[in-house]
Amino acid sequence: MTNDLQHLFYPRSIALIGISTNPLKFGGGFWINVLHELGYSGKIYPVSPKLNEFNGLKVYPTVRDIPESVDLAIVTIPAHLTPQFMEDCVYKGVKFVQFYTAGFSETGEEEGIKLERELLKIANRGGVRIIGPNCMGVYSPKSGICWRYDFPRKSGPLGIMAQSGWNAVEIVKLGATHGVLCSELISYGNASDLNESDFLDYFASDPETKVVASYIEGVRDGRCFFTTLSRVSKIKPFIILKGGRTDAGTRAVASHTSSLAGTNEIWNAVMKQSGAIGVSSFDELIDTVIACLYMEVPKNRKVGLIGSGGGPSVTAADECESAGLQVPPFPDSIRQNLNKLMPKEGTSSNNPVDSPFLWDPEMFGKTIRTAAECTEIGSLIVHAEIDSTIVFVGRKVIAQITRSIIDNARNCGKPVAFVLRSVGTPEARQVLHEEQAKFVKQGLPLYPSISRASKAIDNLIQYNQGLPEK
Amino acid sequence: MTNDLQHLFYPRSIALIGISTNPLKFGGGFWINVLHELGYSGKIYPVSPKLNEFNGLKVYPTVRDIPESVDLAIVTIPAHLTPQFMEDCVYKGVKFVQFYTAGFSETGEEEGIKLERELLKIANRGGVRIIGPNCMGVYSPKSGICWRYDFPRKSGPLGIMAQSGWNAVEIVKLGATHGVLCSELISYGNASDLNESDFLDYFASDPETKVVASYIEGVRDGRCFFTTLSRVSKIKPFIILKGGRTDAGTRAVASHTSSLAGTNEIWNAVMKQSGAIGVSSFDELIDTVIACLYMEVPKNRKVGLIGSGGGPSVTAADECESAGLQVPPFPDSIRQNLNKLMPKEGTSSNNPVDSPFLWDPEMFGKTIRTAAECTEIGSLIVHAEIDSTIVFVGRKVIAQITRSIIDNARNCGKPVAFVLRSVGTPEARQVLHEEQAKFVKQGLPLYPSISRASKAIDNLIQYNQGLPEK
Repeated sequence: MTNDLQHLFYPRSIALIGISTNPLKFGGGFWINVLHELGYSGKIYPVSPKLNEFNGLKVYPTVRDIPESVDLAIVTIPAHLTPQFMEDCVYKGVKFVQFYTAGFSETGEEEGIKLERELLKIANRGGVRIIGPNCMGVYSPKSGICWRYDFPRKSGPLGIMAQSGWNAVEIVKLGATHGVLCSELISYGNASDLNESDFLDYFASDPETKVVASYIEGVRDGRCFFTTLSRVSKIKPFIILKGGRTDAGTRAVASHTSSLAGTNEIWNAVMKQSGAIGVSSFDELIDTVIACLYMEVPKNRKVGLIGSGGGPSVTAADECESAGLQVPPFPDSIRQNLNKLMPKEGTSSNNPVDSPFLWDPEMFGKTIRTAAECTEIGSLIVHAEIDSTIVFVGRKVIAQITRSIIDNARNCGKPVAFVLRSVGTPEARQVLHEEQAKFVKQGLPLYPSISRASKAIDNLIQYNQGLPEK
Repeated sequence: MTNDLQHLFYPRSIALIGISTNPLKFGGGFWINVLHELGYSGKIYPVSPKLNEFNGLKVYPTVRDIPESVDLAIVTIPAHLTPQFMEDCVYKGVKFVQFYTAGFSETGEEEGIKLERELLKIANRGGVRIIGPNCMGVYSPKSGICWRYDFPRKSGPLGIMAQSGWNAVEIVKLGATHGVLCSELISYGNASDLNESDFLDYFASDPETKVVASYIEGVRDGRCFFTTLSRVSKIKPFIILKGGRTDAGTRAVASHTSSLAGTNEIWNAVMKQSGAIGVSSFDELIDTVIACLYMEVPKNRKVGLIGSGGGPSVTAADECESAGLQVPPFPDSIRQNLNKLMPKEGTSSNNPVDSPFLWDPEMFGKTIRTAAECTEIGSLIVHAEIDSTIVFVGRKVIAQITRSIIDNARNCGKPVAFVLRSVGTPEARQVLHEEQAKFVKQGLPLYPSISRASKAIDNLIQYNQGLPEK
C-alpha cells in the first residue's frame, strides 16, 4: 500500500484546494503564486466552488471535476469540509494530500481527534496518502514546489524533515546562510498517515541527499522508527533535533502536533543504539551538517589547535576538550619545527599553538602545514579573531590570512575545521560575511566558535564510529 | 604595605619605559600615542637612554632623572634590564609598575622564574607594587589610560579583571557591542605581586562599578582569594570565567601566565561557596553581566514564554527548562484572558504562549501585559524571530513590534528578558543591529537566543539566592 514518495516531491500535477477571494489570505492562491514564482512546470489545478478563474487558471468546483490525474493536492479549506473532500480524492485517485488545514488531533479535543481518524479511514480506502494534517508539506526546489518566496531556488545535498513548519524554515534559512542548500524538505505536522519512518526511507534512498537534518516532536510507531533509523543511519547521517526534551517542551508538543514526546531516557537510548546523531539546538544541527558534508572523518579525537593569543589559546583548549575532543601536547620533533617558524617571545609551539599570525599570513600558513605533520592527531582546528585583526592590520591583511589559511589547510593532509570569531562589531560582521563566502565557495567547514567547531567534529566522529567496518 | 589602587587607575603621572626609534614597534611610544589620543590629562614621562625627544615630549635617560613623582610606570624594555630599572623605581618612589615585558615565570625556565622573584624582592624593599609581569595593565576610560585606539572613550558600570590581555579585549568589545561600557579594567598577567584578591577588593569598593567580569587562570593565594571573594560577592556580582578547566587548558595556562589552574572540583566548590557567578564562555559572561545590570531579580525560576510559532514555542520551552528555569502551565484565569486576545486556530494560550504577533503588534503587546498578571511566575521571556518577519511584514512592522514589546514590557510589573532571533541573513543582521540599539538605549536585556537569555536569568537568580536576607 505504500506509494513511492517520488511523486510527492516531484508531482506531475498539483491541485490547490481552497482559493480565497481575498488575495491577502494565506491559502491555496498564495501557494499557486509561489509555485509560479519558483517555476513549477507541472499542471496546476485550483479548486474552489466560489470562483471560475484564478490568475488566468481555470478553477474547478471539486477535485472530481479536474480533467486529468492529480499527484498532489494541497489543502487549505476548513477542517469540517475535509471528509467530503477526501471522498472526492478517493474517487479521483489522488496520490498525495497535504493538509495545511489545522483543527485535528493537535487541538486535544474529541471532535478534532475523530475528524483526523475519519479522514485517514477514507484515505486508506482509496490508497490516498496523507501528509499532516497541520503542516506546510513539501519544499522541492528542483520541481519548483514551495510555500515561501524567500526559499532558495537552487537545490543542494541537505534533506530536511520537520514536524514544524517554522522550524523547517529555520533549518532551510540556517542552511542557506551557511551555503548548504536543500534537496527536498517535508514538513509533516501531525503525521497521521505518512510519518517519520516513511520520510527516513525516502531520504535514505534519494541520491542527491547526502545528509538529513530533522526536527521531530514524537514518533507514531516507535518500533518501526527505531528499526528504520538504525537501517538508514548506516547509509547516510541522520541528524535529529528532538522537540519536547523537557516537561514544558513535552506539553508544548502535545498542543502543537499531538505527538507523544516520549521520555528523554528512551529517546537518548534510541539515538545511541540506532547510530543517528542527536543534537540539542539548531546551531548544533547546522554545524554537524557542515562537518558531515565538508570534513573528512578524523581518525581520532585528538586535535591540533592553531591560533593567536595566550588567553584565547587557553580558552580554545578548554572549549575543545569540554566538547569531548582532546588537545594533546605535540611531540618534540613537531615543536622543534614549529619553533623554527615563530618568534620565541609571546608564542607557544605546544598544542594549542599560539602563533602571531596577525603580522605574517605566510608564516601562519606554514605553521598549519607543520602542525599537520603530527601523526598522532586526527584533525586541526585553525582559529582567528576578526575584530582585533581589523584594528591592527586592516581588511586587506585579513583577506591574505584567509587565503593563506585556506591554501595551506587544503593540502595539509588532515581534516581541518576553521573558526573565524567576532564579538559582532558592525565592521567585523561585514568582513566576516565576505570571508565566509570564500569558505562556502570552497566547501570548507567554517564555524563561529571553537566550541561549535569541536562539538560538530565530535558528532562526526561519534557517527562514524557507529558505522560497520568497511 | 598595600597601596590604595586609586593611583593605579587614576595616576597623576605616567612614565613610559622603553621608547623605540622604530615607530611601528609596539612599545612605550605606542602607549604614549594612545594616551594622547584618549586624552590622558596627567604628566607623561618617556624614558629611554637612546632618545632626547619623542613626539614633542622630553625623554629621560632613567626613571631617576624624572623631575617629579611618578604614580605609574608602564614597562616595555627587555626582561634582563628590569632589575636595574626596578632599583631606579625604588629610589624614585614610583607607586605602581606595570610590565608589558614577558620572559619571566611564564616561560617555565629557571632564569625567568628567578628574574621575577628578584624583581619582586627589589620592589618590596621600596613599597613599589607590580602589575604583571607579562600583561597589558590598566584601561581606565575616565582617566584616558588605554593600550588600544579602538576601546571606548566613555566609561560605564562594568569592572573587568583578566589575566589575559586578549581576553580582556574580548570582554571590552563584547560589552561595547552590547552597550555595556567599562569603569576600569586591569589585565594582570603573572600576578607576581598585586593579584586577584587586590583587584577584587578594589572593584568591590569602586562606586561606579556595579558588576565585575573576570577571566582568571589561577590564583596566587587560594585562601585569601576565597575569603575575599566570599566577602565581595555579597557587595556586588563577581562573574568569573575560569581559564584552564580542562587538561589542555591547564597546560596552556601554565605556559601563558604560569598560574596553577587547580582542579575543577576545588574551583567549582569555591564558586559555589563564595557566591560568585561561574560561567563557561564569554557569551555567558556578557549575558550574565546584562542580566545583573538590566533585570530586576525574578522572585522565582518560573518563566512565562511569549512568542510566535508552534515549533519555535516547543524549542523555546526546551531551551528554557534545559537552562534550569521552569515554564509552568498558566492558570485558567490567565488563559481565558489570553484567549480573548488571540485567534483560536494556530495559537496557544498555555505557557509557552504562541501568539501570531506578526500581524498585530498591539495585540502582542497586550499579550505580554496579560501574561504578566500571572502571580505564579517570576519573569517573562518575550521572543521574536527577525528573518521571517522581514519576509512577511517588512522592516517597518518589525519596528512597530519592537516598540510595542518595549512599551508593554516596561510597565508590566515583572522582570522581562527579550530575545530577537535570526539565522543571520545579511538583511536580518542589519535590522537586528538597528533594533538592538533601541533595547540598549533603554537599558533592557536583549539576547540572541532563548538558551542564552534563560541561562543568564538562572545565573542572576542563583547569585541573589546566595545573598544574605535583607
